[in-house]
Amino acid sequence: MTDSPKPKSIEALRAALRQFAAERDWDQFHSPKNLAMALSVEAAELLEIFQWMPDAESRALAADKKAKARQEIADVLLYLIRLADTLDIDLAAAAVEKIELNAARYPADKVRGSSRKYTEY
Amino acid sequence: MTDSPKPKSIEALRAALRQFAAERDWDQFHSPKNLAMALSVEAAELLEIFQWMPDAESRALAADKKAKARQEIADVLLYLIRLADTLDIDLAAAAVEKIELNAARYPADKVRGSSRKYTEY
Amino acid sequence: MTDSPKPKSIEALRAALRQFAAERDWDQFHSPKNLAMALSVEAAELLEIFQWMPDAESRALAADKKAKARQEIADVLLYLIRLADTLDIDLAAAAVEKIELNAARYPADKVRGSSRKYTEY
Amino acid sequence: MTDSPKPKSIEALRAALRQFAAERDWDQFHSPKNLAMALSVEAAELLEIFQWMPDAESRALAADKKAKARQEIADVLLYLIRLADTLDIDLAAAAVEKIELNAARYPADKVRGSSRKYTEY
Repeated sequence: MTDSPKPKSIEALRAALRQFAAERDWDQFHSPKNLAMALSVEAAELLEIFQWMPDAESRALAADKKAKARQEIADVLLYLIRLADTLDIDLAAAAVEKIELNAARYPADKVRGSSRKYTEY
Repeated sequence: MTDSPKPKSIEALRAALRQFAAERDWDQFHSPKNLAMALSVEAAELLEIFQWMPDAESRALAADKKAKARQEIADVLLYLIRLADTLDIDLAAAAVEKIELNAARYPADKVRGSSRKYTEY
Repeated sequence: MTDSPKPKSIEALRAALRQFAAERDWDQFHSPKNLAMALSVEAAELLEIFQWMPDAESRALAADKKAKARQEIADVLLYLIRLADTLDIDLAAAAVEKIELNAARYPADKVRGSSRKYTEY
Repeated sequence: MTDSPKPKSIEALRAALRQFAAERDWDQFHSPKNLAMALSVEAAELLEIFQWMPDAESRALAADKKAKARQEIADVLLYLIRLADTLDIDLAAAAVEKIELNAARYPADKVRGSSRKYTEY
């Protein structure tokens, strides 16, 4: 449709998930507290794929593990979008602002090639 | 610019994060394994906001905690987009597919008002 | 045996896990980094049991869920003991010190009945 | 005292934490659900120490990071003991049983030197 958002945009996903929950009467379970728990659980399922894997192997992931990672990554995004929606937070705007904040915090010429900026902030 | 993607789209964020890492020579740290760890850590920082909070309070979050949640939610999204990019996974397409899968798995007329579908899959 | 530690002590568990890994040549996988990942994954599996559950239900946990929680709790302890061992950290001594630190940080007469001490430290 | 358990045993820590919570009227916050969240948060704080670190560096951890890890490891243990106590689970007995279960599941002569047993169960 001309007026509908592009199906794969964050906004379109947000709308689809809101309708999905409403149709199932799941808003009662979807408190921000519970959604934050679900998000952490999905993030750990993603982490599990990599847990005993050498770093290099994770950069050339086997097809079956990549397919698994794809599903878990989707789960994380869906709960994240739903959580942002229940908190009335504009997820995309928050992300853009955070990139700008990080750019100011980690000037390229100061932190190049160092992981220190991560561990010390 | 006419041809650039809308700044707040997942695709635009992906491109911005890729450039951000390249300018800082951070690709060496951004293995999928390390990014999955970072994602879990950020998800837990988000979880921490809610950890001793009654469920109802999380649905009417105080302004200072909401501002904190907004930052953590952004961090989770940024690492998720970066992780998907390093794995060459189309994040938005994966999310759309997962919604369709969930719609088939949890028919609205069968699971309405029940949290069982969560705990038993 | 007369000289062996009480089987269920942390020290006895530490020794058993060390032998378990040695017999399987798993020390190569048991870096502190990997063990910390495994610990987080197990903690999330424990969290998953409670994720859509009302707080009160978690205080009167159904038998099947309690049996599941028991297994996950054991997994967390085993990885924690193994991680402490690989880092040459005396787990029990660290715990005793932390309780003393917490007692100083949260005097009973100042924090009684408040969850603030959690969220603000 | 003659009759008190050895101060650093799991049992002694359990008793100390129970008293600690009672003196502060914190039982109201210490539902298993909330404690499982707190446990996950502490596990992630431990994970954060290792997140951008090469595997080898984690095996020879710098003193300042080891001191930090020691504190986080203690936090994980304290919440784990408290959680087991609120669920009336014998933590040490559960751990002993799990080791026995793992010994049956991963016979040394079958899994030696392979991480497969982890990723496939």
